[in-house]
Amino acid sequence: MTKRLPNALQFSHQLLKAAVSPNDSVIDGTIGNGHDTLFLAKLVGKSGQVYGFDIQKQALQNTTDRLLRHKIDLKNIHLYQRSHANINQVLPESQQITAAIFNLGYLPGGDKAIVTKSKATTAALTACLDHLAVNGLVIVVVYYGHPGGQTEKEAVLHFCQTLPQEKYGVLKYQFINQMHEPPFLLAIQKIK
Amino acid sequence: MTKRLPNALQFSHQLLKAAVSPNDSVIDGTIGNGHDTLFLAKLVGKSGQVYGFDIQKQALQNTTDRLLRHKIDLKNIHLYQRSHANINQVLPESQQITAAIFNLGYLPGGDKAIVTKSKATTAALTACLDHLAVNGLVIVVVYYGHPGGQTEKEAVLHFCQTLPQEKYGVLKYQFINQMHEPPFLLAIQKIK
Repeated sequence: MTKRLPNALQFSHQLLKAAVSPNDSVIDGTIGNGHDTLFLAKLVGKSGQVYGFDIQKQALQNTTDRLLRHKIDLKNIHLYQRSHANINQVLPESQQITAAIFNLGYLPGGDKAIVTKSKATTAALTACLDHLAVNGLVIVVVYYGHPGGQTEKEAVLHFCQTLPQEKYGVLKYQFINQMHEPPFLLAIQKIK
Repeated sequence: MTKRLPNALQFSHQLLKAAVSPNDSVIDGTIGNGHDTLFLAKLVGKSGQVYGFDIQKQALQNTTDRLLRHKIDLKNIHLYQRSHANINQVLPESQQITAAIFNLGYLPGGDKAIVTKSKATTAALTACLDHLAVNGLVIVVVYYGHPGGQTEKEAVLHFCQTLPQEKYGVLKYQFINQMHEPPFLLAIQKIK
């Protein structure tokens, strides 16, 4: 007997687990409270690199605290209090990544008025694709129930739907009979 | 490094593998050339039951041939040359199933004018849900590039989107940047 089908967030972790190996370099585009940063840090291990971004000081603090509580060596975890739109100003040009994860919306437990925005998000996705290895994944968990969420959702969907199919496959994973608007997942895979 | 993300057909097999155990009873709503019937027969093993439906004699012949080639004991494989709309006339009322699979469209290699139709398909899905165990899955791989395919797609999507979320979760798994219309997957899970 099967268990419950994974929700978008759980499925993002299944995909990351399959995509990321020890020693890899990866990006957490929205570190928030650090759950995914920790998850990625464990996947890449002691000689992998995690680049994390968030515009809120509180997010960096919460993430650092979480990593320390889980005894993660911070040496290879690079956290930046900058918009993920600046990924290319931080990442060495030749740095290849095998995965990136974005959780769009606001910082859980934080100021709900501070949200990710369409322009910065699509700039960040473009930057991630520049660095993405073949078969690598850029995963976006799209929360869109908050003010401005619909606009960002449309922008991200448009960005994804117009990626050339010779170079990328874009999977949409969504539960479609829910009254409220649970997050859905987009996974962009570089295929050549 | 991850491999290529599974397409809808490959993902349907991943889900069936997770959902079906030896001794289970399952339904192949569109046996076609018997690929899924064989896959299900292996999953349920010698004491499980597979109920298969197709309106075309050729499909039953091709499926039986395939099962025999793979040395499957036909004792517990029940193939019916009837529309899947008649599932409830064949299945014992108390018979619980853990999974059902439908590949909509025409018989590959057969007459492309003979296709699954909205009304029969939604009747068949309803029947499957009547028999479905908790956590069980009804999986539909929706091919819709053929004449009539769009209409059936809309009907099946409407059916799925209006299932009550207290009783069912409906996942849609689709690649969204493809020029041609590759099949997508719907998975209905009974949650209580």
